[in-house]
Formats: sequence, C-alpha cells, structure tokens
Amino acid sequence: MIIARVIGSVVSTSKAEKLQGKKMLVVQPLDMETITPEGKPLVSIDTVGSGFGEIVMVVGGSSARQTEITKNTPVDSAIVGVIDQIEIEGKLTLNQNKGG
Amino acid sequence: MIIARVIGSVVSTSKAEKLQGKKMLVVQPLDMETITPEGKPLVSIDTVGSGFGEIVMVVGGSSARQTEITKNTPVDSAIVGVIDQIEIEGKLTLNQNKGG
Amino acid sequence: MIIARVIGSVVSTSKAEKLQGKKMLVVQPLDMETITPEGKPLVSIDTVGSGFGEIVMVVGGSSARQTEITKNTPVDSAIVGVIDQIEIEGKLTLNQNKGG
Amino acid sequence: MIIARVIGSVVSTSKAEKLQGKKMLVVQPLDMETITPEGKPLVSIDTVGSGFGEIVMVVGGSSARQTEITKNTPVDSAIVGVIDQIEIEGKLTLNQNKGG
Amino acid sequence: MIIARVIGSVVSTSKAEKLQGKKMLVVQPLDMETITPEGKPLVSIDTVGSGFGEIVMVVGGSSARQTEITKNTPVDSAIVGVIDQIEIEGKLTLNQNKGG
Repeated sequence: MIIARVIGSVVSTSKAEKLQGKKMLVVQPLDMETITPEGKPLVSIDTVGSGFGEIVMVVGGSSARQTEITKNTPVDSAIVGVIDQIEIEGKLTLNQNKGG
Repeated sequence: MIIARVIGSVVSTSKAEKLQGKKMLVVQPLDMETITPEGKPLVSIDTVGSGFGEIVMVVGGSSARQTEITKNTPVDSAIVGVIDQIEIEGKLTLNQNKGG
Repeated sequence: MIIARVIGSVVSTSKAEKLQGKKMLVVQPLDMETITPEGKPLVSIDTVGSGFGEIVMVVGGSSARQTEITKNTPVDSAIVGVIDQIEIEGKLTLNQNKGG
Repeated sequence: MIIARVIGSVVSTSKAEKLQGKKMLVVQPLDMETITPEGKPLVSIDTVGSGFGEIVMVVGGSSARQTEITKNTPVDSAIVGVIDQIEIEGKLTLNQNKGG
Repeated sequence: MIIARVIGSVVSTSKAEKLQGKKMLVVQPLDMETITPEGKPLVSIDTVGSGFGEIVMVVGGSSARQTEITKNTPVDSAIVGVIDQIEIEGKLTLNQNKGG
C-alpha cells in the first residue's frame, strides 16, 4: 500500500452503475520519510470517511475491491485507512495525533 | 483510476469472441491538475457511451472487468465514467459542465 | 490494452502442462500514433491466429486468461485481436486493410 | 517477489474493518546483489512475525491476499518470509544465519 | 511473460505455510534480442525443474498462481518454462538446443 494526501475530488454524473454514490477523491502519493509529494495524483474511492488534507493509506489493483463499499465495483484504487503515525528507523515522520 | 481524454478508436475484425460489439477507444492519460497529456495512449473499452474529445475516468487491471459490458472479457482497461468536474486544492481544474 | 507488432516466437519443450500447444509469440509494443516501437518486447499467447508482422492488440494481467485458449493457464499476456485500423484525432495512423 | 528490509510501521485507527489487528510495516525494497535500498518504501502486512531491521520477502498484488492473515482483506502487499540467505552466481550476498 | 536467466536462490525458514517446499529462485530479466540483463532480479517460484544458468519464461501477477505447484500460494512470480529457442525477425537470438 502507499501513503497519500487527499487533495481533491472528482464529479461524474454519467458513470458505471456500480459507482453511483461512491466518493471519488483525488489523492497525491507521498514519500513516507519526507511526507512530500511523489509521483502523480490518482482517483481513489474513499471507504473510511477520509477528508480533504488528510493523509491516508491507498490500496491498488483487485485488492481495492475488498471492502464493503467497493465490492464488485470497477475501481482499482481505494482509501482504506486514515494514517495517525508513521515511524521509520525509530523516528516519527508523521504524527497526525498531536492533540491532547 | 486515472483521467484521460478520448482521442480515437481502434477497429479489429479478427478478435476474441467476447470482444465482439465492444467499443474500443484510444484514450490519452492526462495530468489531473493541468489537464494536459501525460504518458502514452492506450486502448480502453467504453462502458458509459463516452464520445470523442470527452474527459473520462479509466480503470485498469481485473477491475476493468467489473461492469456489465466487460464482465468475463479479455480487457485490462475500461472507461467507467465521463468526468464533469475535477477539484484540486479548492480550485476547479476541469469543468465540463459549463452550459446553462 | 496496448498495440504491438508480432516480431517472433519462443520455443519451450519443458513448460507448464497448461501451456502445451499454446502459440507463444514475441510482440513489440508500438506507439499508437507513429506505429513505431516503444518499450521492450514481451512473450504473449496468441488467441486469434495472428501472424508474423501483424499489428495486434495485447491484453495483460489476469484479463489475459479470459479467452477459451488461455483460461486457467499461467499467462499474463495474450493477443486478443488483429488491428485493422487505428484512428487518432480524425486521422488514420494505421490501416492494415488497404486491399481491394 | 522482492526482497526488502523492515524499516518502520504505520498506525491507523480509522481503517477498513478487515484491517483491524493487522501489523502494518514499512518496508524498503533492496537490490538483491548489494543488499542496498532500491526504489521507494511501501506499506506491507506482516504475516510471518517479522521484526524491525529484518530482511524479508514481499509479495504484491492479489497474491498478497493468499495467506490466512490477509485473506479477503484490502491489501496489495504482504511479507511472506524472513530471508536467511540469498545466493547469486554462487556467492552469498546475504547471510542472516551467522550465529552458532 | 518475460524471459530471464536463473542466477541464484533464496533460503527462508520462517515463511508462509503455503510456501513450504517451494523452490525460490532468483531470476535476472533479459532483453529478448541481445539476451543480456535488463531490469532488476526478482524472486520467482520454479514450477518446471529449471536449473542454475538456464533461460526461462517468467509469468507475473495472479497468473503466477495458475500451476499445480503455485495454486493458492502467496506468490506473484513463477517460472513456467525453460526456453529452447527465441526467434526474432527470422533470426535465432537464443538457441539452447545446440547439442547433437
């Protein structure tokens, strides 16, 4: 899986029936150490109620259909988690749970 | 999924039986922010009645077979939506619904 | 799917049982606008009786198994059509049906 | 499959139900001859109890779901083995079993 | 499918149960015309009794599981044939059957 930031959304009225009601977001893949953009944005189906600006985990290929929301749908990318923390070599490169 | 523009079509008389009657279009992948070509064109099966010049959403791999039209067919790319709008960082980078 | 030219063949005596009798061709992917080589050749299973020099449509991944010939076989690439014409931006970039 | 080193972990509270309880590690792909980093880190599900710093075998795509732990889950990468030795051209490029 | 040379092997004691007893080889992808290395080595499961130094056909993705040996196992690459000959543009670029 890769890590990405939710940067936008896509609207499509004329689409495959199974895509009706799915939230289609634009995600920007990120480098996991620097948390900076890496590679090109793609369209991914939200399955966890993620919001604009959040850093999420994105799954691709047939595995993107292994959620209740995406089952049997023509999607090759799905957001399956909102990331709280990433730790690399003992250092937190991301900490979205700063509150107290 | 990726975003692409319909730029052409492919004609094949001698083809797999399951491809009979499928509309085989040529799509040019696009950068979602600048809506300019990015990467190489590919052949994709239309499942939503998309037309020449339109900007569409393209799904790849086994997920391309998850529509009524492409079910159990030997295709690895399908057009599953016509894009109305793309919004990135709060800005519309694409708006195909300009009419009034 | 991609477009490729049949440029050769592969012979293997010791192979997976399900590959017995399959025609294993070497295909060179092509740029769809210039019809010139692009990327590296690969081995693809012929399912439509294509011949040396012909320009064909090649499908990859699990979808390559969605033909009668490749069903349940260990192949990740199949030739599923012989291309007659490619039209891009209103112009024929390929026309293999010149005869009359 | 590829070889990678376990370099970190990811924490996600809000995630797909089927991911609950899965150990999400960050792995850095390695060159098999020099055992040095090659390519970008990704998130992979541990299925063999691997630990920080270990060199592991990582499987991708739908095959990542072919373990008891990842069955029917939305994951496209899984750690399926801890590597003891890699031998290339008759030379051990990796030997994690040095102990006696 | 791609062509590769068997250049080594991988040993893993702690691995997914379904991988027990599988022969895990290191293969170096080859250019089909020059028969020289191209791209990076990967780990592939042998299903045809191939040996060190041999040139083989490698299948990737879910199709790697379509053999008796790899069925339902977490592998994304399998060796499914030993190559005897490769002919490109009427010329043998590989001939492993020189004996007489």
